[in-house]
Amino acid sequence: MKFGGTSVADAARLKRAAGRIVAKREQGFRVVAVLSARGKETDRLIADALEVSPVPDPREMDMLLSTGERVSCALCAMAINDLGHRAISLTGSQAGIVTDTSHTKARILEVRADRIRSALDEDSIVLVAGFQGVSTAKDVTTLGRGGSDTTAVALAAAIGADECEIYTDVPGVFSADPRIVPDARKLDVVSFDEMLEMAASGAGVLQLRSVEYARTHGVRIHCRSSFDDSEGTRVASEDARRDQDMENPLITAVTHSRGEARVTLIGLPDSPGIAGRVTTALAASNVNIDMIIQNEPRSAGALAELSFTVPQDDVAAAQAALAPIASELGIEVDTDDAMGKVSIVGAGMKSHPGVAAKVFTVLGEHEINIEMISTSPIRISCVVPGDKVADAVKALHSAFELQGADTIRPEQPFGEFS
Amino acid sequence: MKFGGTSVADAARLKRAAGRIVAKREQGFRVVAVLSARGKETDRLIADALEVSPVPDPREMDMLLSTGERVSCALCAMAINDLGHRAISLTGSQAGIVTDTSHTKARILEVRADRIRSALDEDSIVLVAGFQGVSTAKDVTTLGRGGSDTTAVALAAAIGADECEIYTDVPGVFSADPRIVPDARKLDVVSFDEMLEMAASGAGVLQLRSVEYARTHGVRIHCRSSFDDSEGTRVASEDARRDQDMENPLITAVTHSRGEARVTLIGLPDSPGIAGRVTTALAASNVNIDMIIQNEPRSAGALAELSFTVPQDDVAAAQAALAPIASELGIEVDTDDAMGKVSIVGAGMKSHPGVAAKVFTVLGEHEINIEMISTSPIRISCVVPGDKVADAVKALHSAFELQGADTIRPEQPFGEFS
Repeated sequence: MKFGGTSVADAARLKRAAGRIVAKREQGFRVVAVLSARGKETDRLIADALEVSPVPDPREMDMLLSTGERVSCALCAMAINDLGHRAISLTGSQAGIVTDTSHTKARILEVRADRIRSALDEDSIVLVAGFQGVSTAKDVTTLGRGGSDTTAVALAAAIGADECEIYTDVPGVFSADPRIVPDARKLDVVSFDEMLEMAASGAGVLQLRSVEYARTHGVRIHCRSSFDDSEGTRVASEDARRDQDMENPLITAVTHSRGEARVTLIGLPDSPGIAGRVTTALAASNVNIDMIIQNEPRSAGALAELSFTVPQDDVAAAQAALAPIASELGIEVDTDDAMGKVSIVGAGMKSHPGVAAKVFTVLGEHEINIEMISTSPIRISCVVPGDKVADAVKALHSAFELQGADTIRPEQPFGEFS
Repeated sequence: MKFGGTSVADAARLKRAAGRIVAKREQGFRVVAVLSARGKETDRLIADALEVSPVPDPREMDMLLSTGERVSCALCAMAINDLGHRAISLTGSQAGIVTDTSHTKARILEVRADRIRSALDEDSIVLVAGFQGVSTAKDVTTLGRGGSDTTAVALAAAIGADECEIYTDVPGVFSADPRIVPDARKLDVVSFDEMLEMAASGAGVLQLRSVEYARTHGVRIHCRSSFDDSEGTRVASEDARRDQDMENPLITAVTHSRGEARVTLIGLPDSPGIAGRVTTALAASNVNIDMIIQNEPRSAGALAELSFTVPQDDVAAAQAALAPIASELGIEVDTDDAMGKVSIVGAGMKSHPGVAAKVFTVLGEHEINIEMISTSPIRISCVVPGDKVADAVKALHSAFELQGADTIRPEQPFGEFS
């Protein structure tokens, strides 16, 4: 069971989470729960850091931020003990989450769950501080954005959990963001592949890394609300999905993301390997490229261009990483950070041609310019002007008839991270 | 170098502490600094705990509270890195502070300073989270009240430090609490024995355990202000003291404590071993007895009494611990928690008879009832009504002519703990 920051934000919510954990235990399950830092605690710690240092040292940032989840776990363990059950909280290190040494963005190398297992054998409920681990250099590390989801899935895999329940501030995964599309439908089951594409294309409810990890290790995820007992959305293998969802619609969901930026390199020398050098430089600076498009000059004298999208937050890093190459090769670097992206995702589209055509037609009818396009067997994504994102989502959601009856309005913004 | 909570309470103070650490490094010293939790952080965490649990689980309380010092150290390390020096923060566990398993009051069993040494060898400034360690069961433990002072002294001993500087919110150790005696004198040097007696009898500036530890391991303590560069008070061996302070006055200081409670057991059976059973029961409940007095019945039919003093906070625990014995032996337990204690301390009094007589006379002249008396070769303590403590301190301080020229007023209350 993983509870996000809003689910433990205050004493009342934290006790409710404790109650849910105990209820699960009393159903006969052995429970390992992963908790995030409370509400805005991580923001508070970051603010404290920026107060003393403009560019905080990453190792120390991890030491600092890792305290937030420990506080949540200790408090929750107290609450559970008061409910007459034995609970112990473990830091990421105590839980055996061994990571590499890349601070603030560490990757999990290994999970040594011995201590968790022995605690479970002693009939204790185990609370693990999410978002963190211990590096091979014995330093505290954090897993970066969405780290607690990854912690939960990694532990579920390590201990062979029946299910990894991600309790969040929305009832599940929807056919679109209900704040944009009020009659969006809650999905009962999505496949790992669909969930990956959705997470990658802006569905904030589950974090990409955790879904990747779950697919690799076959961890069954149940994404559900921490505010009620209703069934959420299960993320499972294709087969499970097909079994449980006979109709298997053409399209499963429309996702979107704002905060995209497009970087265009103009005047590339017409020589091989440039794209490789560019992407290598960006990777070295931990800049995540999303779409990338290269157009060879057709007419003589025309300049070759390379365009790619990155999160707006990474634009500065991208420019810094590209500066040397640009000056060396006389390339002009142009950025536009008012971009958004809208995507349709659905395992069903694999077997249906013409989906792309429909997407472009619909957007065209709504006079939405498509700046870039990328596709996968189960996804079509279009980069559009940021101020057109909502229109595009609405148009596609209704064009593919995704609306459902059981409409809800989440009490929190989508996508609770950490 | 140890900095207390008020010395790192806000960004400005934390940066000042970082500056002092760097300055020390630039004088050519290798520096290990121990930090306490920021300002009221520990209180905040305790409040959070009580919000979710009336009686928080001790193990989880340690997990919770230990985060405060980690935050301070991470932030200070960031600030030092910005000043162009290398600094790393270590948790108590990473610093190799191994304790027993008695949570919230753990004792240090061993200090494995290898990691500190190697960091110093790499020319890093090492910041260690005070007040905490890791138990032999690999759980996070805290050292209890004044734990950070103990951490600092323990590390100083383990790495063979030249000196253990305790930076606090007062300029040093005084001949009396300047809030009660405005012309109290700052002491340049006090002996370990004197400091022990003073700490034990209410001088909050240095914590008893840390002084004990320092004496046992011969760690030279320099207790000084974190707000200016003035020399503070050195705590050293008798000889060092005598060398540096020729006159060696009869009395060094008047100390006091409020918050004392007296517990009296009335109607003890006239059989041996009762006091033993009582004190054993209290020790088992971690109740610290200070003075203890037993009076045998002189006249037939009179009832034997056993009185002792404990901190007011421990009265409830004491009553709980004594209940079984009391009911078994038909003993009446009477408590009075409006008590205070005033003490005079001075290595000089060993060789001077009549000091006790003078104390009693002075207090008598001021019509202050003495409820209990205890003495050591260098201390005389009197339990007096709580509302008479200030009068008693003033009377004794002037009677023994302890006032000095260099009077100060501390900007903070005496005794910064954690």
